[in-house]
Amino acid sequence: MSVTAARGFTASGVSAGIKDSGAPDLALVVNRGPSYAAAAVFTSNRVQAAPVRWSRRVIGDGALAAVVLNSGGANACTGPAGEDDARAMAERTARALRVEAEQVAVCSTGLIGVPLPMDRVTAGIDAAAAELSEDGGEAAAIAIKTTDSVHKTAVASGSGPDSGPRSGSGPGPGWTVGGMAKGAGMLAPGLATMLVVLTTDADVSAPTLDSALRQAVRTTFDRVDSDGCMSTNDTVLLLASGASGVRPDPAEFAEAVHGVCLDLALRLVADAEGASKEIEVRVVGAASEQDAVTVGRSIARNNLLKCALHGEDPNWGRVLSAIGTTSAVFDPDRLDVSINGVRVCRDGAAGEPRDKVDLSGRAVTVTVDLRSGDASATIWTNDLTAAYVHENSAYSS
Amino acid sequence: MSVTAARGFTASGVSAGIKDSGAPDLALVVNRGPSYAAAAVFTSNRVQAAPVRWSRRVIGDGALAAVVLNSGGANACTGPAGEDDARAMAERTARALRVEAEQVAVCSTGLIGVPLPMDRVTAGIDAAAAELSEDGGEAAAIAIKTTDSVHKTAVASGSGPDSGPRSGSGPGPGWTVGGMAKGAGMLAPGLATMLVVLTTDADVSAPTLDSALRQAVRTTFDRVDSDGCMSTNDTVLLLASGASGVRPDPAEFAEAVHGVCLDLALRLVADAEGASKEIEVRVVGAASEQDAVTVGRSIARNNLLKCALHGEDPNWGRVLSAIGTTSAVFDPDRLDVSINGVRVCRDGAAGEPRDKVDLSGRAVTVTVDLRSGDASATIWTNDLTAAYVHENSAYSS
Repeated sequence: MSVTAARGFTASGVSAGIKDSGAPDLALVVNRGPSYAAAAVFTSNRVQAAPVRWSRRVIGDGALAAVVLNSGGANACTGPAGEDDARAMAERTARALRVEAEQVAVCSTGLIGVPLPMDRVTAGIDAAAAELSEDGGEAAAIAIKTTDSVHKTAVASGSGPDSGPRSGSGPGPGWTVGGMAKGAGMLAPGLATMLVVLTTDADVSAPTLDSALRQAVRTTFDRVDSDGCMSTNDTVLLLASGASGVRPDPAEFAEAVHGVCLDLALRLVADAEGASKEIEVRVVGAASEQDAVTVGRSIARNNLLKCALHGEDPNWGRVLSAIGTTSAVFDPDRLDVSINGVRVCRDGAAGEPRDKVDLSGRAVTVTVDLRSGDASATIWTNDLTAAYVHENSAYSS
Repeated sequence: MSVTAARGFTASGVSAGIKDSGAPDLALVVNRGPSYAAAAVFTSNRVQAAPVRWSRRVIGDGALAAVVLNSGGANACTGPAGEDDARAMAERTARALRVEAEQVAVCSTGLIGVPLPMDRVTAGIDAAAAELSEDGGEAAAIAIKTTDSVHKTAVASGSGPDSGPRSGSGPGPGWTVGGMAKGAGMLAPGLATMLVVLTTDADVSAPTLDSALRQAVRTTFDRVDSDGCMSTNDTVLLLASGASGVRPDPAEFAEAVHGVCLDLALRLVADAEGASKEIEVRVVGAASEQDAVTVGRSIARNNLLKCALHGEDPNWGRVLSAIGTTSAVFDPDRLDVSINGVRVCRDGAAGEPRDKVDLSGRAVTVTVDLRSGDASATIWTNDLTAAYVHENSAYSS
């Protein structure tokens, strides 16, 4: 259902010829109103692609009529000409849709440092505008794939202002949040981006959208740390058409947005290139949420642990080494570590026998108890595999 | 030449049976005086092995008579029993050498979380004490290897208080600094440690030793960042016998210590397990040395870049992405990146054609000009290879 699950949106995906393969590479998502509220979260990388700079500027007024997205080229590190290209994409989209360029966000993904073939991009925008439909969500999700093995969509809906969101497919009689995503941080070879577009037909103001989106991103996409690498192009957009006529309770709406973000985030982790395991690093007993996140990230980024888990070795010594590099509150002699439910480390030393741990499946949970407070956080990551190395050494940027 | 290049030292290395393979696994380095000044730098990991805790305590008075080292077991995360074992190693060595236990530093390397076989360790200490000789430096360097493919030693000497240090072999008529090293951060599989013992026959006080050692480590071992993983056992020791009778100029002495440390550090990088390239990340034009180090580390830890360089792809986009994650002073549109001398990125965008870059050799230099000041720093790292993954997934901790 993707970005057209919510009423008031049309979308499309076409093959513009940006990719040599001829695969779909250009998508449009259009808000038909009556409302045009929007919010966005961008990469915190200080090296930002031209489309990120453009979109960051036009989202300033909290309104968007459309998003144009391309795969096959990130338009990052492309200098002033790249800035012109990002603007030209917005202008061409605006002309086709009879809106203002400042109402159009631009997202690009693919190789860094290479200019886009703008003749193909602009022709593709015209073609995509002609293809727009209320069923175009899947086609849009497919067109933003780079090395993703599957396209990723999610949806949640709420039946009204007085009831909570419910998971499921299709728009309910109330309001709906739907979305599409590609990439996983900078995990996949040759690409540079996680792109997410969420839409809703709920009648929600830009500040409420912004608050819901930031809250959701903070504990979902921001906690996916597949390979510790941060992109120049990461963008998460949320557009509201108001077409349902329902003004939901802000907390319930936020919960629905969070649910869709979490669903998409876990799909990104599950599709991480070259990975053979999905690893959930759960840190509990922390003195603060920040401590829990810091410890979780340090563990998730530890190459030696990621290799060990790939080899199905419940190597808790690597976990302790990673914790020890942080400044979080803990006593090294009171650390507990469980791997897939077996407490292999107790009080900073060997606990249950490591051969009790079953690591044969794809899902791995590493739970660390810092025994220093009540805060917790979860970071999702992948194992480090020879396939990851191969895919990231055999491709160009 | 190793730790017995300097006069006043004896050493030995024996097979104590700690390793199942029967390879040498226990070493002694003994200072015969007349002076016993010593300095040390330890891991900054907050999870510290029992031998690190012991050695940190006994170095407090700036004097050591001996160092006992074992491979085959890190005695890390071993609880109170591990503390007892580290102390027992010092006590047994002290008894064999007729010194005090508080004059003996202890270094261990190998598996984390597994108790040492103390009956074999103590018998090995007695055997090693019986083998001590002025030619024992090589045997000691061999006995501390874990997965190192070669043992690593280095030496520098100065002819007197009025002349600078000169590189070369053997003790001169003046003074000498020699040393041995094993590991590379936590790069090698199954091990947990970089261990370094340096010796000198110069007549140098403990505070001067400490100053020279900290200065040298800061710009050598501390800037080797092979895989971003920090050990629980890292230890660098410097012992001075005063046997040359020469009291060198402190600056010249510091330069010699730096030279030996740099030599050993580069040997560690060159022997990094699973690596096929040695990568020098040189950051210039930084507003501060701290900025240069931060940027260099961010680049050295970027798995995507390390994979790309393994694949001989001069992927400057990855370099810019890594720089962008730091808070160093720079303008994204004024960044220059050269790879093996070819400026592939100029002003934050594509520069010279990337196919001009020759990455066929083992040595790779990535030079980043932040164009924001005069400070610089170099970080040494390795590429990320399928062999690294294999070796770190196929071994236990």
